[in-house]
Amino acid sequence: MRIVKKYGGSSVATIDKIKNIAQHLLERKNNVLKGEKCEIVVVLSAMGKTTNKLIELAKEITPSPNPRELDALMATGELQSIALLSIALENLGLKSISLSGSQVAIKTTGTHTKNKIETIDTKIIERYLNEDYIVVVAGFQGINIIGDTTTLGRGGSDTSAVALAATLNCDCEIYTDVKGIYSIDPRVYKDAKKIDKISYEEMMEMANLGAGVMEARAVEIGKKYGVKIYVGETLSLENGTYICDMNEIIEKRVVSGISINENVIMVSIEQFSNFPKNVSILFSLLAKNGINVDMISQSDVSDIKGHIAFTCPGTDEIILDKSLVELKKEFPDIIVGKRRDVGKISLVGIGMISNFGVAAKVFETLAETEISFHQCTTSEISISVIINKINIIKFVEKLAKNFSL
Amino acid sequence: MRIVKKYGGSSVATIDKIKNIAQHLLERKNNVLKGEKCEIVVVLSAMGKTTNKLIELAKEITPSPNPRELDALMATGELQSIALLSIALENLGLKSISLSGSQVAIKTTGTHTKNKIETIDTKIIERYLNEDYIVVVAGFQGINIIGDTTTLGRGGSDTSAVALAATLNCDCEIYTDVKGIYSIDPRVYKDAKKIDKISYEEMMEMANLGAGVMEARAVEIGKKYGVKIYVGETLSLENGTYICDMNEIIEKRVVSGISINENVIMVSIEQFSNFPKNVSILFSLLAKNGINVDMISQSDVSDIKGHIAFTCPGTDEIILDKSLVELKKEFPDIIVGKRRDVGKISLVGIGMISNFGVAAKVFETLAETEISFHQCTTSEISISVIINKINIIKFVEKLAKNFSL
Repeated sequence: MRIVKKYGGSSVATIDKIKNIAQHLLERKNNVLKGEKCEIVVVLSAMGKTTNKLIELAKEITPSPNPRELDALMATGELQSIALLSIALENLGLKSISLSGSQVAIKTTGTHTKNKIETIDTKIIERYLNEDYIVVVAGFQGINIIGDTTTLGRGGSDTSAVALAATLNCDCEIYTDVKGIYSIDPRVYKDAKKIDKISYEEMMEMANLGAGVMEARAVEIGKKYGVKIYVGETLSLENGTYICDMNEIIEKRVVSGISINENVIMVSIEQFSNFPKNVSILFSLLAKNGINVDMISQSDVSDIKGHIAFTCPGTDEIILDKSLVELKKEFPDIIVGKRRDVGKISLVGIGMISNFGVAAKVFETLAETEISFHQCTTSEISISVIINKINIIKFVEKLAKNFSL
Repeated sequence: MRIVKKYGGSSVATIDKIKNIAQHLLERKNNVLKGEKCEIVVVLSAMGKTTNKLIELAKEITPSPNPRELDALMATGELQSIALLSIALENLGLKSISLSGSQVAIKTTGTHTKNKIETIDTKIIERYLNEDYIVVVAGFQGINIIGDTTTLGRGGSDTSAVALAATLNCDCEIYTDVKGIYSIDPRVYKDAKKIDKISYEEMMEMANLGAGVMEARAVEIGKKYGVKIYVGETLSLENGTYICDMNEIIEKRVVSGISINENVIMVSIEQFSNFPKNVSILFSLLAKNGINVDMISQSDVSDIKGHIAFTCPGTDEIILDKSLVELKKEFPDIIVGKRRDVGKISLVGIGMISNFGVAAKVFETLAETEISFHQCTTSEISISVIINKINIIKFVEKLAKNFSL
């Protein structure tokens, strides 16, 4: 058997935790049937809060550090954790080798700090697996065409792990500090239930919508290449959540989960002529600056002066502000408003496809709780609303009750 | 003009220090004459005690971590400091690029944790210099033939800097937290004098003998390729020390300096047949394990059973102990003794070549101070003795007086 096992930052936060994972891998290696091959690839995040600490160091110099250098800086965290786990494995008598994104040759494209994996060369990994090494790969990082170190954005280690499993043609286990995927973030709603099985589609929506457990791109790759993904608590014996094909889930829930995303800024632009050309200039500008625009809505006040609103991650604020200054130069008449005190609440469920009335129930809940919303979008399997942060808990608790989660 | 400037760990220990260096480099760039090119390559060590902290993490797992993985771990410190300086330089509006040992292609050979530079590819550096970038290179690290990250051993960043200056055909400035090279370590002997000019040969002996300021290999490369080296305090206006050719120094001092090395273990092996074959087995074994043997002395008790003694760095103790166990298997009759409470005092001076009586004066000083010595070796320009640690200060003070340092 062959497996990719990914451990998150909190799972490798201390030397003791790293030693425990090494011990677990030793047992896993020893527990295979005689004659069976046991090929393990481990993907790690940086220890604990290392990545954040590195970003803070850079921000002590300037609020907007050079992205190429920030990538080089951030990538060192994973280089440390993989070397330390490899030392721990070798110390237990196992053969182990740590490999950086550049050593594996995880080729990426895109903007620095937000790269995407293009190809993974598995030659070196296959060679070491063949010689019975445990291969420990740095998550979150790769190398671009000119040889610069790149990173994959927040939660990028999940993407590294699933992409490796896809190229190595095996399953992927994601270990973290939570017991699996919950219908609602249990830190917000303590009665939330763990989900045993969830479809790629639902998980992608939930991840995209800010349910912190897994990165959406990782799930997307999983779906595309049919990688079976397991999400569970590090070193726990309790079962976590399996992410699998929609068809493998017999009883489809109307609403599988509610996700809460507080990393949201909502921008509204008034006096903006909604000619397709202008809208295109706006979103091209944002894209050029690497801002992930999420919800978009617009309404025409008259036939030439309109109103457009969109949301983006709160962490993009600095570059957003710069972009809005650029935009103002192009369109001096516009009035720009920015809301930071908002959050996005999303309901996700593959059952929505065949069930009407979910949106109606959401608006009913808003009415019951007397909460007004700023924006609303829907997809086939989700519905999202932007509301003020102070109302989030009240709204989510009521939703959980109304949808019996 | 073109220059390699190297800053040690204490000079980049904090973000403020890194910002100050960036500011200094900006002024340096602006201060060149109109039309003159100013090409700067910066070599950095890791911030403050980072390397030590990383080694401690590894030693929390095991006292003898896998050397390949230890190298990968240690090399991350310099990757962080170069990215941070580059961010600071870019923030001041300068063009800057950080390059790892692997990105430059600093090819090394040898044992992990103690590699030697074989070749440096300057193509990428020349290209960036040509485009007016300040090129910030990670010291202490390289890459071996199979693509593994390697390190150059303690003080290896000096070696990186001088080797880069040699290949880039320019001078090298080494910045540190001391004002230059002193005749005696000023922490031990407060009346020690700073030397304005010292020859490569003297500096090599002093560095080899443990005068902490510069790495001997770095000076050796400087001598071989005629790289002019300046050693001085970071951001200080006071003059430091120039390391240059012996012929450039007109008045040759008999004794330029006294160095003190407390990182010494002395091993004596009794009942050891001093056949050339046996001696060769002993030193081959030590070399195979990567131990730097320093002083060697032997004496025959009878024609077949002899006595041999040698010293090696105290930091090699773990691997030394392993080697001695191996040796004992080969020669079960030998009696092995180990002294850790000793230090090595060395006097260095190019004037010794033409001056007799230095050794006599050293032994006179030992007699005066009633200090007995365990071993003694001499070279053309140096004389070293091993004495007990407790006697070091008394001896050095008397030597300084007798040789008027």
